[in-house]
Amino acid sequence: MAEMRKPIPVEEAINRIWKRRITGEIEHVSIRDCDNRRLAEDIVAKHPVPPFPKSPYDGFAFRSADTIEASRNNPVTFKVVEHIGAGQVPEKILHKGEATRIMTGAKIPDGADCVAMFEICQTYEEDNQSFMSIKRTMDSGQNIIGEGSEVAEGEELIEKGTIINPGIKAVLATFGYSQVKVAKKPVIGVIATGTELLDVGEELQPGKIRNSNAYMIESQIIRAGADYKYFGKLEDKFDSSYDMINEILNEVDILITTGGVSVGDFDLMPAIYEKLGADVLFNKVAMRPGSVTTVATNGEKILYGLSGNPSACYVGFELFVRPIVQHYLHNSHAFQRRVKAILGDDFPKPNPFTRFVRCYLLYENSRLYAKLAGIDKSNVVTSLAHTSGLMVLPGGTRGFKAGDEADVLLLDDQQGQPEFKTI
Amino acid sequence: MAEMRKPIPVEEAINRIWKRRITGEIEHVSIRDCDNRRLAEDIVAKHPVPPFPKSPYDGFAFRSADTIEASRNNPVTFKVVEHIGAGQVPEKILHKGEATRIMTGAKIPDGADCVAMFEICQTYEEDNQSFMSIKRTMDSGQNIIGEGSEVAEGEELIEKGTIINPGIKAVLATFGYSQVKVAKKPVIGVIATGTELLDVGEELQPGKIRNSNAYMIESQIIRAGADYKYFGKLEDKFDSSYDMINEILNEVDILITTGGVSVGDFDLMPAIYEKLGADVLFNKVAMRPGSVTTVATNGEKILYGLSGNPSACYVGFELFVRPIVQHYLHNSHAFQRRVKAILGDDFPKPNPFTRFVRCYLLYENSRLYAKLAGIDKSNVVTSLAHTSGLMVLPGGTRGFKAGDEADVLLLDDQQGQPEFKTI
Repeated sequence: MAEMRKPIPVEEAINRIWKRRITGEIEHVSIRDCDNRRLAEDIVAKHPVPPFPKSPYDGFAFRSADTIEASRNNPVTFKVVEHIGAGQVPEKILHKGEATRIMTGAKIPDGADCVAMFEICQTYEEDNQSFMSIKRTMDSGQNIIGEGSEVAEGEELIEKGTIINPGIKAVLATFGYSQVKVAKKPVIGVIATGTELLDVGEELQPGKIRNSNAYMIESQIIRAGADYKYFGKLEDKFDSSYDMINEILNEVDILITTGGVSVGDFDLMPAIYEKLGADVLFNKVAMRPGSVTTVATNGEKILYGLSGNPSACYVGFELFVRPIVQHYLHNSHAFQRRVKAILGDDFPKPNPFTRFVRCYLLYENSRLYAKLAGIDKSNVVTSLAHTSGLMVLPGGTRGFKAGDEADVLLLDDQQGQPEFKTI
Repeated sequence: MAEMRKPIPVEEAINRIWKRRITGEIEHVSIRDCDNRRLAEDIVAKHPVPPFPKSPYDGFAFRSADTIEASRNNPVTFKVVEHIGAGQVPEKILHKGEATRIMTGAKIPDGADCVAMFEICQTYEEDNQSFMSIKRTMDSGQNIIGEGSEVAEGEELIEKGTIINPGIKAVLATFGYSQVKVAKKPVIGVIATGTELLDVGEELQPGKIRNSNAYMIESQIIRAGADYKYFGKLEDKFDSSYDMINEILNEVDILITTGGVSVGDFDLMPAIYEKLGADVLFNKVAMRPGSVTTVATNGEKILYGLSGNPSACYVGFELFVRPIVQHYLHNSHAFQRRVKAILGDDFPKPNPFTRFVRCYLLYENSRLYAKLAGIDKSNVVTSLAHTSGLMVLPGGTRGFKAGDEADVLLLDDQQGQPEFKTI
C-alpha cells in the first residue's frame, strides 16, 4: 500500500494553491457589528473634515483686524453679540468690534477670522450687555481649524480588505456609514479523522488521545476571520466517509480534514479524493513539520488534508489555508508579515528541508528577537500555546545559533504582505 | 465658570486609577466559545503527554535485542502477530521474534522497545502468516515517543489571565476541558455628550458633526476584551443627565462619557460627579492629547470622563481604561507592551508635556521602526485608522528626528507587561 510521493518545495505548494484562489462575496453589516471584519470597498471621504471651520478652544471669535492697535496698555474691547456652544449654529455675522462667545468644536461665525482663548480675555457686563477685551494682536486664521484641513472631500482613506479596528470604525461613523460593506466570511468545514480520537468530554482510554486538532483548527479559522462548521469524526470506512464528504462539500467553501493523509493502511483520504474526481495539487511538501499535507480542488472548492500531527496541522493551516482565506476576504496583503528576527536560542538541528519552528517574539532596544516556543517536535501540542511566530529555516541550512538572523512569519499580525517571500 | 485645574503627571494619573482596580468574576464557557477569552485559572497538565508510549511512524514494533545479529547480509525475520491502527489497542505481548504492525500514533505493545519504519522493512506472506525482516540493528527506545516525554503530569502550562489562542485551545482540548473557566467580561457603559453630535445615520447639518467617538470607544472596548452598552447621548440639561447617569451606574461596571469634561459653559460632568458624591481622582493630566481627562470613582465603579476630541478620547481609553479592564480579566500583564522603536519620521514639535503620538510599526532587518500615522492633532479622526502604536515622547523633550529611538506602546499586542513604565 505504501505509495511513493514526490515532495515539492513549499513555495511551489503555495503557488499551486494560490492559483486557485477566489474572492468572496460582499455583505452589509450594521456599523455596530463591523469590528474585525474586512472592508469590501475603499473608504473615500464623503465630505471635508472638518465640514466647516471650527474652534479648537473655548473662547471668543472676532475679526483679527480689530486687534491691530491692541497692546498691554491698550486693551481693545468687543461687544459680545452671541453665545454659542458646540452644535449650536452661529446666526449673527460679526462686524467691527463684535465678538461671539464660542465653545470647542463650534462653527466659526461668518465675519470672524480668529479665536482667542478665554484665558487671555477679560470679560465684564454693563447694562445687561456682555463685553470682552483683549490686550494683544491676533492673526487672521489664528486658532481656527479650517474646513477640510484634516481631510479633503474625495480623499482615499482606507483600502479595501483592511481589517476594521477602532480608528477605522471612527472614520466610518464620521462619514455616516451606518451600514458597512464587508467581505463575507468563507465557511470552512472541519473533519477529524482517526479512530484513536476521543472527544474532549470523554475520559482517557488506553491507546487513545483526545481530539485537539479540530479545536485548534477552529480557533485558527476564527483568527483568520472565517467561520467554521465542525462535522465530527470521519469513520475509517470508505463508503460512508465518501458520502459524508460529498454531502459536506455542498455546505462549505473550503474543507479541512486532519489526519488520514499519511501512507498508513487506514488512511482513506487519497481514495476519497480520487473518487470525488478532485484535482490533487500535491500530496507531499519538502518541509518540516507537515510534509504529508495533501491539497486538492473540487470545482472552486479547496480540500485540505492536513496532517494529524498537531504541529504539522497548525503550520499547514497557516501556510496553505490562511492566505486563501485572506484573499477570499478581499485582503490584498494575504500572506503573513515576514520579518527578520535575531534568534534568542540555539537551534542545532540541520534542516534538510525548509523548517518552520514555533517561536514567540521579544523586543530589546528596538531589535526583534525570536525565542523557541518549546520542544520542536511535530507532535508537541503544548508548545503551540506560546507560539506567535514561525521561524523559517531554509532547507539545506545547518543548525542556527543564538544571535543568527532568520525570517519569522508573524501569526498575530493583521497587516500582512502581498507575497509569501521576504519583501 | 472657568475653573482652575491642576494637571498631574501621566504616571501619577495611572497610579491613582490603578489603586482602584478590581478583579472580575469567573464564568464557565464551552470550549467552542472560549476563543480570545482570558483564562481564569492556571492550566496544569492533568496527565502525561503522551499518555502512553507511542509510535511516531507507520512501521513495526518489536524487541530491539532481537536485531543484535542483523546486518546487510544477515536479515533477521519476525513473525507479525498483530496489526494495529492508531486508537486500536495492542492486545498481544511481544516475545522474541515477534513484531506488531503499527500505525503512527498507536500505542507501543508491551514487550516491544523500538519501532522500525516500513521503508526499512521487507514483508512477505507464507501460509497466510505475515513476516517481516530487517537488515540492521535497532536500539532500545528507538522511534518511541515515551509516556510523558512532552509534558509530565502536573506540569504548569499556561498562566491564568492568558488570552486563549489556537494553541491554548488545543491544550485545553488535550486535557479534556470541555468547559473552560474564563474571566467574566466587564460591562462598560458608553455615553456621548454634546449637542453638536449627529447620529451616524443622520445627514450632516451646519455646525454639527457625526458622533464618531462612541463607535470608536465601543471598538476599543471590544479590542480590550470587554462588553459595551451604549446609552445614547446625554442632553445638556443637568437634572435629566444626572438621573440618567445615576440609573446607568446600576447596569455597568465602568462608565465612560466622552466630551463634557472641558471647562466650557455647557459641560455638565463635573457637577454630576459632585452630586453623585463621586471621588474625583483627577481632572487634568499633563499630557497631549487628552489633558482634559477626568476620572472619578463611585464605590467600586470607575467613571471616566474622556475628552470629546477623538484622538484624546482614543489615547485616554488606552492609557486609563484598558489596564483596568485587563486586571478585571485576571491578566497580570495589564499594561500595553512598551518597546523601543526607531522613529521613521521627524517629529519637530517640542513636548512641554508627555505626548502620545499615533504611529504604525515597520520592521527592517530585525529593527523596529515607528512611522507617524498621520497629522498629529488631537482632533484628527482619520489618522487613527492606521494607528497600531503610540509613541511616548516624554515631557520636557525637544523635537525628535528620524533615526532617534523612542518608546512605543503596542496597541494590537495581547501579551502586555505588568507595569506602565519601560521594562
